[in-house]
Amino acid sequence: MAVQTHEKPAGDTVSLGPASALSCRECGERFPLGPIFACEACFGPLEIAYDLPTGDPEGLRRRIEAGPNSIWRYAPLLPVPADVVDRPATSTNPGFTKLVEARNLARELGVTGSLHIKDDSGNPTHSFKDRVVAIAVEAARAFGFTTLSCSSTGNLAGAVGAAAARAGFRSCVFIPHDLEQGKVVMAAVYGGELVGIEGNYDDVNRFCSELIGDPLGEGWGFVNVNLRPYYGEGSKTLAYEICEQLGWRLPDQLVVPIASGSQLTKIDKGLKELIALGLVEDRPYRIFGAQAEGCSPVSRAFKDGHDVVRPVRPDTIAKSLAIGNPADGPYVLDIARRTGGAVEDVDDGRIVDAIKLLARTEGIFAETAGGVTVGVTKKLLEDGVLDPSLTTVVLNTGDGLKTLDAVAPTTGPTATIRPSLEAFRAAGLA
Amino acid sequence: MAVQTHEKPAGDTVSLGPASALSCRECGERFPLGPIFACEACFGPLEIAYDLPTGDPEGLRRRIEAGPNSIWRYAPLLPVPADVVDRPATSTNPGFTKLVEARNLARELGVTGSLHIKDDSGNPTHSFKDRVVAIAVEAARAFGFTTLSCSSTGNLAGAVGAAAARAGFRSCVFIPHDLEQGKVVMAAVYGGELVGIEGNYDDVNRFCSELIGDPLGEGWGFVNVNLRPYYGEGSKTLAYEICEQLGWRLPDQLVVPIASGSQLTKIDKGLKELIALGLVEDRPYRIFGAQAEGCSPVSRAFKDGHDVVRPVRPDTIAKSLAIGNPADGPYVLDIARRTGGAVEDVDDGRIVDAIKLLARTEGIFAETAGGVTVGVTKKLLEDGVLDPSLTTVVLNTGDGLKTLDAVAPTTGPTATIRPSLEAFRAAGLA
Repeated sequence: MAVQTHEKPAGDTVSLGPASALSCRECGERFPLGPIFACEACFGPLEIAYDLPTGDPEGLRRRIEAGPNSIWRYAPLLPVPADVVDRPATSTNPGFTKLVEARNLARELGVTGSLHIKDDSGNPTHSFKDRVVAIAVEAARAFGFTTLSCSSTGNLAGAVGAAAARAGFRSCVFIPHDLEQGKVVMAAVYGGELVGIEGNYDDVNRFCSELIGDPLGEGWGFVNVNLRPYYGEGSKTLAYEICEQLGWRLPDQLVVPIASGSQLTKIDKGLKELIALGLVEDRPYRIFGAQAEGCSPVSRAFKDGHDVVRPVRPDTIAKSLAIGNPADGPYVLDIARRTGGAVEDVDDGRIVDAIKLLARTEGIFAETAGGVTVGVTKKLLEDGVLDPSLTTVVLNTGDGLKTLDAVAPTTGPTATIRPSLEAFRAAGLA
Repeated sequence: MAVQTHEKPAGDTVSLGPASALSCRECGERFPLGPIFACEACFGPLEIAYDLPTGDPEGLRRRIEAGPNSIWRYAPLLPVPADVVDRPATSTNPGFTKLVEARNLARELGVTGSLHIKDDSGNPTHSFKDRVVAIAVEAARAFGFTTLSCSSTGNLAGAVGAAAARAGFRSCVFIPHDLEQGKVVMAAVYGGELVGIEGNYDDVNRFCSELIGDPLGEGWGFVNVNLRPYYGEGSKTLAYEICEQLGWRLPDQLVVPIASGSQLTKIDKGLKELIALGLVEDRPYRIFGAQAEGCSPVSRAFKDGHDVVRPVRPDTIAKSLAIGNPADGPYVLDIARRTGGAVEDVDDGRIVDAIKLLARTEGIFAETAGGVTVGVTKKLLEDGVLDPSLTTVVLNTGDGLKTLDAVAPTTGPTATIRPSLEAFRAAGLA
């Protein structure tokens, strides 16, 4: 790999566009922008504080609309250098994926308003992870890191490998040693270092935490650990795109998958920013979280009326959502309750049915996480929780090609025949 | 599947935008627009004749630029109804995929001009087939067909299944009965009929030809047979997009894969149209065809100085290019010679190397067909046939996730270690 030099800027300040500081989500303590992720005072999670370009919404809207067909059109609202748009090779330039008006699916589900699928399978490595990694890459560059890293069992490994390759970083990704060969290939093909760890995913994570604290890990940016405050902001772009693609309008209802819960909280943050900036009208929206029954700690807490999320041991085909102890679970509960939403879950059978339902109505082949959101949407409509007369957006965050095994056992030919018209006639398909 | 009614328009005329007639490529005989594909006079292939919107290139350019981020921005130049842009559900709305400036790859190959990858893995079902199928769907609608069909061993099956689902057609796709399970799942998941034929791909094709001529096949649009003249035009959009994305400029050199050869001829057609319309400056361009050594009849004929293409029995990992008797081979030879291009081939080892080269330099994981074009580009540069100082565009027509087997045997972890810093230190990767 052609590793380029990433010079750390002189002095202690970095320039990441409108990002002004890191702020503790719990106690509000502020810190200069840097590769830290936990509050020194209370150990709460840090997030980005901004000086956003208020005062001229029309000018901002025009500037966004004149931008590239990627997340970089929203650079004025992201923790990235102002010139990110003009640089030729940032990372994979993800985003501005299709918002598909799902008329066939709406008809089948009895939706009389409008139903839309935000289809992130159109990203460069076919999941929403390209968004978050792209932002982490810009932070890594600003902080002078030369190696990009993460622990992963799937989508994130590919997103980091691809972004590092294109942006000229070394990458070193850690995976459990016994992953399926297909996933290993997807993680390894971009040519970075790929290290199998003899242990399960928890062992991999523990090892990465050790490495961050050790001199061996110096110069390493772990996208979802020491770069996490930046990384997480990538999910805001989903909110921006949905509103712009609806004609600068808030959806009434959003159905969002929950893994760590970060994505859902950042979508809420993005919507609030658009309101504050005057880019969309300020009116209520409701956010619904979706989990697989086999890993539904947030759904459980929501239904039980609890504020704390009790960890579970995941057991579901929706591997990309299988986080048993979701860090942002309490924030998700808060958002679902504050906006008048809900958190619901569906079992593996309904996940598979929902993947097939979306494929046969809209021609979109979703990952299991997309089966979770579509399945939960169906359930919430059946239960009268979602209002069928409103504008609803459902997220598909990944690609069915990556989770073929989920549908393979129940998806096959209608018939197998000899190559003759008689045989075809007999099969009754004409 | 919710099959909608597609009313055949009254009378014998159909309205497909600027398309005015079918014209025989060999004898020039003209026929009214209809679901026919061979000249009644000489059996030559039919192609679309147009009344294109000449006279106001600036107005046309503005109209295109204001259009949607899909092939429909070029509706004024395609055989589709003028209102295709406004209809909510056409098919999968493919196109306007990324043109990636490949600086890392250029550096590695010694290209001093600019090198670009036109990356069609970003299409809805992750191959360029979505483009051609989308045009065939509009023709099928115009001709009153209710079933979309094709024979396929891969990409086309998925593209037809997805487009039919979304556009409200029934679909019935024919495949050899012994395809790998992954490909069967990708073809079946959209919920149309999928029929395994006991025989090889030739048997499947023969069966489809029989079916077209039989009353059983009435109302059936075979996208690449009786809708082929329309279908093929979808590939013109690759030429349009490349030029628009280069700032309304022709590339100097294009490297295009050859299966049937249709795509290459339509790209040439698209470039000539842009020149005729005044949308780009009229200056020379060179088109290079790329084949796998294991299926290289056109490359062979080019090197031997022949005008005819002798059929071969394909034996290559590049399955999506494995057409041993390419229908448009002679036209490809003509274009390569007329434009000062060439036709070249690379063996399977170089195809795999090229897939990995593209992945580790640009973060793009290409299908084997993309390995063919990148591999041929490298070879043509080494041989001094391609000029490294010019603007070159290389097509990647599909997604690596669909041909994992090609790279799996040689792609894996760098190391496998115990979860400890000592083990990591010993592996020498820090």
